[in-house]
Amino acid sequence: MNNFTFYNPVKILFGKGQIAALATEVPADARVLMAYGGGSIKKNGVYEQVLDALKNHKVVEFGGIEPNPRYETLMHAVELSKQEQVDYILAVGGGSVIDGVKFIAAAIPFEGGDPWKICSEKAPVTKAIPFGAVLTLPATGSEMNSGSVITREETKQKLSFGSPLTFPKFSILDPETTFSLPLRQLSNGIVDAFTHVLEQYLTYPVNAPLQDRLAESILITLKEEGPKALQNPTDYDTAANIMWCATMALNGVIRVGVPTDWATHMIGHELTALHGIDHARTLAIVLPSLLRYKRDTKKEKLLQYGERVWGVTEGSEEERIETTVQATVNFFESLDIRTRLKDYEVNQSTIKEIVRRFEERGVKNLGERADIQVADVEQILRMSL
Amino acid sequence: MNNFTFYNPVKILFGKGQIAALATEVPADARVLMAYGGGSIKKNGVYEQVLDALKNHKVVEFGGIEPNPRYETLMHAVELSKQEQVDYILAVGGGSVIDGVKFIAAAIPFEGGDPWKICSEKAPVTKAIPFGAVLTLPATGSEMNSGSVITREETKQKLSFGSPLTFPKFSILDPETTFSLPLRQLSNGIVDAFTHVLEQYLTYPVNAPLQDRLAESILITLKEEGPKALQNPTDYDTAANIMWCATMALNGVIRVGVPTDWATHMIGHELTALHGIDHARTLAIVLPSLLRYKRDTKKEKLLQYGERVWGVTEGSEEERIETTVQATVNFFESLDIRTRLKDYEVNQSTIKEIVRRFEERGVKNLGERADIQVADVEQILRMSL
Repeated sequence: MNNFTFYNPVKILFGKGQIAALATEVPADARVLMAYGGGSIKKNGVYEQVLDALKNHKVVEFGGIEPNPRYETLMHAVELSKQEQVDYILAVGGGSVIDGVKFIAAAIPFEGGDPWKICSEKAPVTKAIPFGAVLTLPATGSEMNSGSVITREETKQKLSFGSPLTFPKFSILDPETTFSLPLRQLSNGIVDAFTHVLEQYLTYPVNAPLQDRLAESILITLKEEGPKALQNPTDYDTAANIMWCATMALNGVIRVGVPTDWATHMIGHELTALHGIDHARTLAIVLPSLLRYKRDTKKEKLLQYGERVWGVTEGSEEERIETTVQATVNFFESLDIRTRLKDYEVNQSTIKEIVRRFEERGVKNLGERADIQVADVEQILRMSL
Repeated sequence: MNNFTFYNPVKILFGKGQIAALATEVPADARVLMAYGGGSIKKNGVYEQVLDALKNHKVVEFGGIEPNPRYETLMHAVELSKQEQVDYILAVGGGSVIDGVKFIAAAIPFEGGDPWKICSEKAPVTKAIPFGAVLTLPATGSEMNSGSVITREETKQKLSFGSPLTFPKFSILDPETTFSLPLRQLSNGIVDAFTHVLEQYLTYPVNAPLQDRLAESILITLKEEGPKALQNPTDYDTAANIMWCATMALNGVIRVGVPTDWATHMIGHELTALHGIDHARTLAIVLPSLLRYKRDTKKEKLLQYGERVWGVTEGSEEERIETTVQATVNFFESLDIRTRLKDYEVNQSTIKEIVRRFEERGVKNLGERADIQVADVEQILRMSL
């Protein structure tokens, strides 16, 4: 097992009716920016529940944070927050709203010039406004970690940042808020969470059997519960199980002491930045090719994954690996997530553009062995055509 | 799944060489009480490593915290801390030292009279001195939770308390510190952790498949790694896996959203208080009888546990449950932990005394269904004779 540090101070309030706890979780004297997305919370009752819980608080609203939250939009929230002397933020929505709020929280007190430097130059976050979250879409895990991914529309960049200061103080996870999600978003969330686990699991063995089994526990549960959720999105227990799996997938518990491979995310972000393809779908496009391309260096874990998650025990090692990757593809496709670039009308020219951008940014040494270079990225994307 | 709150802000620093991090984890201007146990840390090099890391700190030492830490001893540490104006505590040792430090931390600023009231009357902890831990014995999980169990020698009481203020600020887990543990303590630790998991798992199903699998992940890993650790206590990876399992067993992750049954602990504490039997051994005595006595109400989970952890699939339900409980007993015995009261020269008269004490204290409604009364405790203990 590798050495590690684990720290996650996010308080989770999980279950039916927990939104009412906002009344006490948000400090009584706070001046709150309530940040949300495209307005779905106004259709499903969450908006009213939140305002009701905060009826004795001073609340300023900021709606319109888009999927893949944009720097340009978020800076309006920063401006509004300063005007209104906001000292607490509440994110109400999915991972994009929460990621966006992390940026707003760090940008308000940022003293180093343009807050975009937090993403582009990894400028250190030394202060941040405290914030909490009401999660309405199980997917990214942002509700229980300190990471954030922000898109700059002007330059079509999608970049990440994180800081110990950008953990939510609390996150409320009420599975009932997901009952009205479009199936497309539910599918995306399941694939996103599933891929998060694989990126922390399909590397090389370091004799960490507990971490392996914890990862497999989430994978098997998503495999079982995912199709049920699509069939019956208002079944409470199924929704609860999906929601908790997505949070556990990226709260750090399965990552400790093991190598990780975030190449799929890094490559996928480019497809979103250039073509606006849903984040989860970019992962479903990239991951199978990456696994096939790296099947030798990931062999032991691919075989273990195949056996324990998909029951693949027959055939040569090469055959078992291919059966396992195909089982993963079939799972994604069964959730109505297409896994080929051509399904999204993306072709060779995009691959060239991604290669150009990676070269320009000096991207190199991706993957758990730091052996995925730009030429490998090109190969992987070609395999996904 | 049941509603739940999860909060665990303990920072974990895991691995070889991590004790050196004390230099920065303990605030530079702190006046530190370094608390430890019977002196084993002076034989295995941990004492020197800690003092070396804290060479620029003001440190006051307090040794001699015993297994099942005693109120009487801890109050001496409270007195010393006040004299020396201690404002930070470092626990160096196993669960007993860490539990003891939690009490010291809460007792120093306690304003409600005798700090024993924190245990005996559940007097609220409104202030506590911050503290960290260097763990040297994987077992109780105290390094990553806020609970503590204190024994009052005078009255032979063993009582628990906990508060959000008694989480360690950090815990350092270096598996190498366990290399020199007596096998007896290693066995105890494995059984303690294994039982902690079972007490959060062998209840009734609430459609929480992820929590079930996370619990089973720890059980299977302890089952596999435990015997290896006894055979080769200086194998780093094995020691690391045991250590991380013990922490994960009681840091709250597997408890969320599911019922729990702490009856085994409640009854076991009495055997320690009256006869000084090692804590883990009391669990190994009580648990099998409790599972047999409650086999009907725990049926679904016992069958699942048997199948997934011990591979028990043959026979009637009744037979499979008995085979499963016996497999658990065999596992404990294989670790050289005896599971009968007679192995510890305890007889009927102790059972009577425990019944008397429970009646006196008004103990009732134990177990996940609150249906274990004193008469049931008597039956369970008789089955363990």
